[in-house]
Amino acid sequence: MSPSAPERRIRITIAYDGTAFHGWQVQPGLTTIQGELERAYLALSKTAVKIQGSGRTDAGVHALAQVAAFTTTNPIPCDNLRRAMNRLLPPAIRVLHAQEVASKFHARFDAVSKLYEYRIFRDEICSPFERPYVHHFPYPLDEAKMAEAAGLFVGVHDFGAFAASDEKYGSNYCASRTIYLSELVREGPRLFFRVRGSGFLKHMVRNLAGTLIEVGKGNLGGADVRRLLTAPGGSTSGSTAPASGLFLVEVTYKS
Amino acid sequence: MSPSAPERRIRITIAYDGTAFHGWQVQPGLTTIQGELERAYLALSKTAVKIQGSGRTDAGVHALAQVAAFTTTNPIPCDNLRRAMNRLLPPAIRVLHAQEVASKFHARFDAVSKLYEYRIFRDEICSPFERPYVHHFPYPLDEAKMAEAAGLFVGVHDFGAFAASDEKYGSNYCASRTIYLSELVREGPRLFFRVRGSGFLKHMVRNLAGTLIEVGKGNLGGADVRRLLTAPGGSTSGSTAPASGLFLVEVTYKS
Repeated sequence: MSPSAPERRIRITIAYDGTAFHGWQVQPGLTTIQGELERAYLALSKTAVKIQGSGRTDAGVHALAQVAAFTTTNPIPCDNLRRAMNRLLPPAIRVLHAQEVASKFHARFDAVSKLYEYRIFRDEICSPFERPYVHHFPYPLDEAKMAEAAGLFVGVHDFGAFAASDEKYGSNYCASRTIYLSELVREGPRLFFRVRGSGFLKHMVRNLAGTLIEVGKGNLGGADVRRLLTAPGGSTSGSTAPASGLFLVEVTYKS
Repeated sequence: MSPSAPERRIRITIAYDGTAFHGWQVQPGLTTIQGELERAYLALSKTAVKIQGSGRTDAGVHALAQVAAFTTTNPIPCDNLRRAMNRLLPPAIRVLHAQEVASKFHARFDAVSKLYEYRIFRDEICSPFERPYVHHFPYPLDEAKMAEAAGLFVGVHDFGAFAASDEKYGSNYCASRTIYLSELVREGPRLFFRVRGSGFLKHMVRNLAGTLIEVGKGNLGGADVRRLLTAPGGSTSGSTAPASGLFLVEVTYKS
């Protein structure tokens, strides 16, 4: 490419099995999703780009459709770009779609909502083929109480009590988020906690899921959940569900 | 247990994700399915047993319902045995069922038939969550020709040309096997090769699947397949499909 080739903004949609990765974000010496994507693009295009995601996912968390974007002067057609990246990526990361978008598109700041799904497997025996993608919890849970508590998350709340402890002490830290949907659905042996929101704090979905499990066990009640949502100062939900059960399902943008 | 406790013969049904294991058979210094089962039983019962399977599966091959058996004097109820073993096994191996059977039951010699399934994924993009459990082959294949060739395997044949090369030179080696069912079925983006037989030689199903793929590519025709089945002496099918796509689905016994 000549240095004067026009810049293009590329948006990619990515699925990944997070099991073997140290999360989304590039970290020196560790294998990450963002790192693998940037490595594949460098191998393909011989120029380094920074690939910005809609947000980070933790180590072990999966994605059905993460969204990311980068700027390049490489004129490669989007379908060829997708195929070439998939040849260079490990099979656990797939570029599902690539498209050219407006130069100002930002995968994180332009995101309107995100949908996460937390999967709990309830039967005694979990298939080896499904086990990496669920939290296997075959013990008694009051699922009706959990479903009721899940509804309490809907609305605008200070979710500080549900954030990772290392995220709580910034100077202009704002823990207010809007939750549009929060529901618990049983399908066969699987219990799905689905939550759509304007954005999520670090560990927030896993802490919401962990809290629902505490409700299901009878260790917390609806009043405790309300207290965590209304008086978060210093309090913490205290229970983080395992990463293996969490999927980033969808990121939506203004069309 | 007192040494005079009565002996019991226990039959177990096991599912496993073979990805991380060096096959079924115990091998020094390597992690195998049989080795993990025997290790778990030893930890549970404090006595070593040899757990005999219906047959070996290769490194990387999966099982939905492998069958194995062992003899013990431990009086533990079968349901407790299943639960205890599952607590001690890695999540990639699950004991689905345990039952007491006649003392003469032999998982290998008493097997009447085995059903294997070979999974080929045909679309360009294979989900990261399915990829460990298929052979991803998105290139052109004449699937009608493959289905026709699959039918040729049915019957009694000398399958010597479809055995692993290191298995071919025993003194009383017999490569005759009976195939009851051999079919190719397309379901959405998945192509299933299902084969039920009296027994299978080492690598045989992967060699049958590899041969069908060669037929699909146009490198072999029906006449070549017939020749391999009728004049196996010295000839070899030459194409072994990857282990990741292979599942042992079922082992049947006289009831």
